Amino acid sequence: MIKNKLVVIGGSDAGISASLRARELSPNTEVAMILADRYPNFSICGLPFYLSGEVTDWKTLAHRTADEIEKQGIRLFPDHRATAIIPDRKEVLAADAEGRSKTFPYDRLVIGIGGVSLVPNLPGIDLPGVFFLRWVADSFAFQEYLASRRPKSIVIIGAGYIGMEMADAMIRRGLSVSVVEFLPSVLTTFDPALGGIVRTELEQQGVQVFNGFAVERIEPAGNRLSVRSVAADIITADMVLVAVGSRPESDLARSAGIETGVKGAICVNRRMETNIPHIYAAGDCAETYHRLLGKNTYLPLGTTAHKQGRIAGENTVGGNREYSGTLGTQSVKIFNRVAARTGLKDDEALKEGFSPLSVDVETWDHKAYYPHAKKMRIRITGDKKTGKLLGAQIIGAYGAEVSKRIDTVAAAIHNGMTMEALNDLDLAYTPPLSSPWDPVQMAAQAWSQANGRPV
Amino acid sequence: MIKNKLVVIGGSDAGISASLRARELSPNTEVAMILADRYPNFSICGLPFYLSGEVTDWKTLAHRTADEIEKQGIRLFPDHRATAIIPDRKEVLAADAEGRSKTFPYDRLVIGIGGVSLVPNLPGIDLPGVFFLRWVADSFAFQEYLASRRPKSIVIIGAGYIGMEMADAMIRRGLSVSVVEFLPSVLTTFDPALGGIVRTELEQQGVQVFNGFAVERIEPAGNRLSVRSVAADIITADMVLVAVGSRPESDLARSAGIETGVKGAICVNRRMETNIPHIYAAGDCAETYHRLLGKNTYLPLGTTAHKQGRIAGENTVGGNREYSGTLGTQSVKIFNRVAARTGLKDDEALKEGFSPLSVDVETWDHKAYYPHAKKMRIRITGDKKTGKLLGAQIIGAYGAEVSKRIDTVAAAIHNGMTMEALNDLDLAYTPPLSSPWDPVQMAAQAWSQANGRPV
Repeated sequence: MIKNKLVVIGGSDAGISASLRARELSPNTEVAMILADRYPNFSICGLPFYLSGEVTDWKTLAHRTADEIEKQGIRLFPDHRATAIIPDRKEVLAADAEGRSKTFPYDRLVIGIGGVSLVPNLPGIDLPGVFFLRWVADSFAFQEYLASRRPKSIVIIGAGYIGMEMADAMIRRGLSVSVVEFLPSVLTTFDPALGGIVRTELEQQGVQVFNGFAVERIEPAGNRLSVRSVAADIITADMVLVAVGSRPESDLARSAGIETGVKGAICVNRRMETNIPHIYAAGDCAETYHRLLGKNTYLPLGTTAHKQGRIAGENTVGGNREYSGTLGTQSVKIFNRVAARTGLKDDEALKEGFSPLSVDVETWDHKAYYPHAKKMRIRITGDKKTGKLLGAQIIGAYGAEVSKRIDTVAAAIHNGMTMEALNDLDLAYTPPLSSPWDPVQMAAQAWSQANGRPV
Repeated sequence: MIKNKLVVIGGSDAGISASLRARELSPNTEVAMILADRYPNFSICGLPFYLSGEVTDWKTLAHRTADEIEKQGIRLFPDHRATAIIPDRKEVLAADAEGRSKTFPYDRLVIGIGGVSLVPNLPGIDLPGVFFLRWVADSFAFQEYLASRRPKSIVIIGAGYIGMEMADAMIRRGLSVSVVEFLPSVLTTFDPALGGIVRTELEQQGVQVFNGFAVERIEPAGNRLSVRSVAADIITADMVLVAVGSRPESDLARSAGIETGVKGAICVNRRMETNIPHIYAAGDCAETYHRLLGKNTYLPLGTTAHKQGRIAGENTVGGNREYSGTLGTQSVKIFNRVAARTGLKDDEALKEGFSPLSVDVETWDHKAYYPHAKKMRIRITGDKKTGKLLGAQIIGAYGAEVSKRIDTVAAAIHNGMTMEALNDLDLAYTPPLSSPWDPVQMAAQAWSQANGRPV
């Protein structure tokens, strides 16, 4: 057991996972956690559900309370902003809420500082009534605006995960919702054909969707805000949410001589080590090893942050674990639909030198004779030459076990399985929940037929 | 492409899959399918839902109609009972409904004749009002009895999958239901602790459950039937369902010199070949290769029958495929609960020379702050020495993605993964559907902690 002074910058998924793991394996470790706000270990993925009203008490979004964290032997320094890392002295400097500087000496340092919302360089982006959503404080500002101004309408810029969840949330709150997206489809982490299903769902729920809408500026329009496109289309609403993605928060690290790479994220190896000894990084501030590509990419996700944090934590106390890698597995609930994906889409696979073939199937989620069967759409992608499974996208009904079906595919890709091997898996069947060949296996069979080779 | 006269005995999962696959790969193949009843390709797993009334038209239980099957180039011989296989002449003899004998010459033969209900040697087992449930005709007899006699109560002997589903079905039909089971718990393919959850569910739904009830006899009691135990307990009802399992239908094969093995099932290798050249067997009449055990066992399941049939069919037309093996993955819906399992339980693993450790966890199916989160119970089993994942059992709410969560574990076991590797999988997360660590990963972490070694 190593006697260890561990400093962790960041109190979200990566930082907490690192700290808990270090303490679990090495109870002598002293952990000091520097966090910029007062909300350690919050499920920021849950913020849209707080804003929708489905979560009535924001405090329940905490995986653990501050007390519970401290009881795990993690000393919290809330409202402290890390201002410098000094590797030569093995120190982190931080400023508290009053601006007083504090020095945190470390034996090991984990940077889990997260990402920041992308702020597009648009005129009007700073106007009152324009919001971003990433951290807990963002949601408070948003909630306060909803409560005090009682807006009746919102324009959401960006049709990614947060944009989609917030469209759902704001319809629930009774607002009139418009979504504008630069690209020609929504939820562009999915192929356009599947994005089309989501768009239809949005429209059926009353959301107005504008694809191919390149925002030029946001401008005041009386008490309201107008979002204007380069094509001079104008949508006016009471408030605007900008949800166009995030970037890694890596300035602090870079200033300390820590290398950054893909999209400015902190370079890490699979042990989550940076280029500077004794300094680790994990989560949305760091690069993500992609298991299928065999190289680092940038794919900030809560699941990944937990895993990377845990590995960083283990390695700070003498462990020797490597991150297994992401497959970009994600799921999202949008009104009554669930969209889930893993691995590579056609275009992504092509770019990486694969010979992808994608095949679409539509199947029932369970035997059609049993009540409430619902159609699900599966797009499965494999490599024509090797038969290797590369990815899948599924869109189906909420309640139809969509997201855990993608997990079967993720487990298969993780293990380098072929399409025919996926078809061989011994998966669960009972008529109310599946078919003797699970939908993902029907997709695999369709793929093999399309590829002209027997499964 | 091989010019091939394929004879298939049996028109259920294995026989149909074999035929379709042979035709798909080798369209010149002539397929003659000898089937004992008039219901080819029926989902016999769906019969309880027909009897429950949830499926209103029994014809919808057919995966394909007879016409659709014939259009696939499969010639059906319904109401034909195969009476002999003569390997020396490569012929099958069958008797039609009128008892006339017919000869079917073959180049390749697939036996997919299925299983038969176990008929315990009990006094009274032949009384009117005593039913079995395996084939479509069984369900018609049962349905006819329900319709004409309007029974108000039933005793179900046996608390396995069919017994449980029929308890659910008969409550739905308004009957008073008693389940008697020889063993001390219900659903004994699960550990007793998890069976206890199912028993509670049954009782909450008004089913009376009697464990440790050894049936001695069934006897008439006026217009009713009494089921009497060796301990002289008596339960009287209007009808009795005997659901104590099945055995392979292998007499025909045995008479032809085909070897039988485990529980009397037809011996097959992983190519689904019997000991006699050109004769294959698949499905409930045949042995089942178990992937974890590396040897044949007997585990009759529809999923397995489909897979084995498909492989047999492929190999009859010159293919060279091996069955990947079963893990005994199963799921069942009982009222509002779903139980799913894969791999080995503790006792099964111990018997096979593993050093099993099983750990129970109770977790929410998704983030507790999001509405409608429900607890699920997971028991995960691994090998203490190697850390290898051996099995899992999950019981949770219907709608909580229980059955497809077991699939993730099945995919992991299929690939020989360890508990820590399961924890590394990149699985889907969104607060309404999971947690950043999926419940199966929380179980893996708990297991590793219990095993005293870091994940």
